[in-house]
Amino acid sequence: MCPVDVRRRLRINDVFLLLIILKFGLHAVDAVWPLPQTFTSWTERYPLNPQHFHFGYRGRSAALEGCPVLDAAFKRYFSLIFPDYAPVCPTGNDKLRIREDKPFSVEIAVDGHYCESYPTEDSSERYNLSVSAGQACLNAETVWGALRGLETFSQLVYQDDSGSYFVNKSDIKDFPSFQFRGILLDTSRHYLPVQAILKTLDAMAYSKFNVFHWHIVDDQSFPYQSRTFPDLSSKGAFHPMTHIYTQSDVRRVISYARMLGIRVVPEFDSPGHTKSWGKGQLDLLTPCYRRGIASGTFGPINPALASTYQFMESLFKEVSSVFPGSYFHLGGDEVDFSCWRSNPYIRAFMQKMGFGDDFAKLQAFYIEKIVNITTALNKTSIVWQDVFDYNERRSSLSVVEVWKQGCYLCEVRRVVKAGLRVILASPWYLDLPGPTHNWARYYNVWPLAFSGSEEQKRLVIGGEVCLWGEYVDATNLSPRLWPRASAAAERLWSDEKQTSSVENALPRLLDFRCKLLRRGIQAEPLNVGHCRHEYQGV
Amino acid sequence: MCPVDVRRRLRINDVFLLLIILKFGLHAVDAVWPLPQTFTSWTERYPLNPQHFHFGYRGRSAALEGCPVLDAAFKRYFSLIFPDYAPVCPTGNDKLRIREDKPFSVEIAVDGHYCESYPTEDSSERYNLSVSAGQACLNAETVWGALRGLETFSQLVYQDDSGSYFVNKSDIKDFPSFQFRGILLDTSRHYLPVQAILKTLDAMAYSKFNVFHWHIVDDQSFPYQSRTFPDLSSKGAFHPMTHIYTQSDVRRVISYARMLGIRVVPEFDSPGHTKSWGKGQLDLLTPCYRRGIASGTFGPINPALASTYQFMESLFKEVSSVFPGSYFHLGGDEVDFSCWRSNPYIRAFMQKMGFGDDFAKLQAFYIEKIVNITTALNKTSIVWQDVFDYNERRSSLSVVEVWKQGCYLCEVRRVVKAGLRVILASPWYLDLPGPTHNWARYYNVWPLAFSGSEEQKRLVIGGEVCLWGEYVDATNLSPRLWPRASAAAERLWSDEKQTSSVENALPRLLDFRCKLLRRGIQAEPLNVGHCRHEYQGV
Repeated sequence: MCPVDVRRRLRINDVFLLLIILKFGLHAVDAVWPLPQTFTSWTERYPLNPQHFHFGYRGRSAALEGCPVLDAAFKRYFSLIFPDYAPVCPTGNDKLRIREDKPFSVEIAVDGHYCESYPTEDSSERYNLSVSAGQACLNAETVWGALRGLETFSQLVYQDDSGSYFVNKSDIKDFPSFQFRGILLDTSRHYLPVQAILKTLDAMAYSKFNVFHWHIVDDQSFPYQSRTFPDLSSKGAFHPMTHIYTQSDVRRVISYARMLGIRVVPEFDSPGHTKSWGKGQLDLLTPCYRRGIASGTFGPINPALASTYQFMESLFKEVSSVFPGSYFHLGGDEVDFSCWRSNPYIRAFMQKMGFGDDFAKLQAFYIEKIVNITTALNKTSIVWQDVFDYNERRSSLSVVEVWKQGCYLCEVRRVVKAGLRVILASPWYLDLPGPTHNWARYYNVWPLAFSGSEEQKRLVIGGEVCLWGEYVDATNLSPRLWPRASAAAERLWSDEKQTSSVENALPRLLDFRCKLLRRGIQAEPLNVGHCRHEYQGV
Repeated sequence: MCPVDVRRRLRINDVFLLLIILKFGLHAVDAVWPLPQTFTSWTERYPLNPQHFHFGYRGRSAALEGCPVLDAAFKRYFSLIFPDYAPVCPTGNDKLRIREDKPFSVEIAVDGHYCESYPTEDSSERYNLSVSAGQACLNAETVWGALRGLETFSQLVYQDDSGSYFVNKSDIKDFPSFQFRGILLDTSRHYLPVQAILKTLDAMAYSKFNVFHWHIVDDQSFPYQSRTFPDLSSKGAFHPMTHIYTQSDVRRVISYARMLGIRVVPEFDSPGHTKSWGKGQLDLLTPCYRRGIASGTFGPINPALASTYQFMESLFKEVSSVFPGSYFHLGGDEVDFSCWRSNPYIRAFMQKMGFGDDFAKLQAFYIEKIVNITTALNKTSIVWQDVFDYNERRSSLSVVEVWKQGCYLCEVRRVVKAGLRVILASPWYLDLPGPTHNWARYYNVWPLAFSGSEEQKRLVIGGEVCLWGEYVDATNLSPRLWPRASAAAERLWSDEKQTSSVENALPRLLDFRCKLLRRGIQAEPLNVGHCRHEYQGV
């Protein structure tokens, strides 16, 4: 009864139905954010009774009972779909007796791969979802696609005024426009309790984000507790016990993220942004000089010492084993050359290497060595655009993250013309507060709006919302991120042509924001109004 | 042993000691926000053991055991002072056994009035607090002053790295610079769950705010459930059951506020800002006309009908009995004359009254009648500055709230020159987001920085932080309000000369913000850094 082919193409009559629905049947269309690539829904609706509702695997599925990612997702989504449900007591509490006793089951089939351990950069997130009387058929190529489909199904279910649950007859064929849809959290400027990270991961899954970019250390503090170099956090964290991420904390975050189909990309930004590293690792940073004498202050990592690369190799070897994903963010942004310039040993090294007075060459030399270390560890490196801008030998680079303001699409074009992959972050810096009703500025972005070949455009692998930590911690993280980040999420997932109108998107986003509140996410208001269930977590 | 005279003046040696402390003993001075008027502290410190810590009334106190406000405050402040304390089990859990067994008691004497029911606009909040070995003596003229002193005492207590509690020898003589220190919450643009209001009241008490200005209804919704006119909320609220404040909700807010020494000032803004009123009360709003025909839209309250004033009198009679305070905010801002102008019956009324084409006269006529109703109910009216600006006959006015941007002190000056009292709100509009590190803009305000006589300056009774609700609800209320509102709180409480330096204030504000986190308030970060106890309520 359930259709089989995930890749079944959109047919003419699907388009026709979609147009009808977009015009007349807004309720169900309202219900999903980000908007599926093709979405047909009918006014025919089916009541759902939590006591007769089941998730199940279809016989031909490659993933079956015992697949931890899906087994856990069934449990999680049951609660999300039926937020008011509490099992009826046998002693006769029939407050929740629901008139509808017809069973409904969501039948899942994963076509291609057996229950994978971790999502990868190539994992398919494509799924087909077809809701009809008594059942929903969810087909996907991977468990990660099945997770996206479950999220969509959960958003299709709604309650009427009496609290009864319904889902409309629907047919959805969906896949992301971009493979990399990330959120950066910065745990160096402020320490974020693990619980705040996990809650953000939950909210990310609701908007179908799939990458958590963990900017874990920076100048201000080094909360990552290294097995190899424990002094880095014991001396470089805000507090050596309470403001660190232990190995077990990191494993917990990675494992929690994987259950949501989210990859964790660690960033150990260098050679700049490393002041806190110097507290726990002697001779790592460059001593700055004033009038020929070491001033007692330190600059970027010292690129002239062999010991630097030994240290970085050991640290990165550990980090690579801790983070199972293939991407490793090396940073490389905002390197201040003045300290290097002041240091006579660095200058002598420059002469020896033939760099003259060009410190960009020194930076490129350092980064190339770090990239090589990373490549040898079988990881793909991501760097901030500075590295691309300053580097003449770009062949070692893989993925460039564009973050500067101004004509960021000009930069995207330069990077793809050089044959490198791009992640776009510039338009999505959400750390600075702004009026939420200006969410459209995050929505009205199209990363491919530059002139280039199809092949070049395929190099734009996605985008990222950055929530830098100078003025953000667990007190304001959620309202600053949500629902503004969801605007970016739709841009990165949905078909651009179907989601180019801010006016059409607004009612769906308002509806989605209310869903976030219902799920306990502190998503701030977009404008005047109300939700049926206001945020109660005060 | 405890000193008796609350009004004992600052002596020369107090000033001398204060200077010493400000220079050398910053720890204890760091610990109080807003800064007490005179504050001496020593490095001598006393350990506090929660198991041997007591609050008590001194024999000569006018308020004694059984005074609900203080009895409840003792319980509340015990938990705030000892956040880690849990009673030791008799079965031998001695994890919390504390080495110090010397008792410590906070002895309270209220001089003047017996345990008052409600704080009034004239209530003294003056207190003296003297901390020495084994005891703290807290003298106040009223229970409200005693509450302020308890808050100060709670902020003096700190924990060392091992978790032991200490308080330094201290001597404080304190009173507010301004009598009216308010926060406006707007429950019309967004409904705020009662719990969010109560939590805000808690946080207000920590910053010694003493007025909750409840902008309870407006154009967008009418959540106040009136006994006399139940249709106002059943038809004018966002939802007639879930998005209203019942009589019992309102009583709960008022009663919770009183326990914290906070007065509740209701605002029923009219004749503008009343669209939601019209849904539940026929013929109250002015029908707007287009080309001589009623267009079906409505404008401000209809000032030309006798029924309007009968309705307003009945409503205000009820509201006056529900809210025990003496102030009643009548609004009066932003009245759009175009609808009045379009209506032939209004124009005829204008002719009859001899107002010509001057709609400001019509507004003044309306407001004068409303003020008279309020006065007859024995309430003091507050109006927004518009009423003062448009009104030629100002003799009926009492208190004017200045809210417009621009030269707001020019307006303050105009109002006091007319012999009216002023509340200043213009510099403290916190609803629009802004970088928290710009908190100094709320700190660098001095409401009396205009040329005027002492008598005129005494008419500036205080100031108010306004958190309008267009983009604020329970999801972002706390981080948007705190700690920025605390900057205004110190301006309104403390001695301006001692608190004119932003640099000196910053470390105290950072410390205070960490205290707010420890107390569960989502106060957002001022800059990079950390608190010993980060916000955990995620």
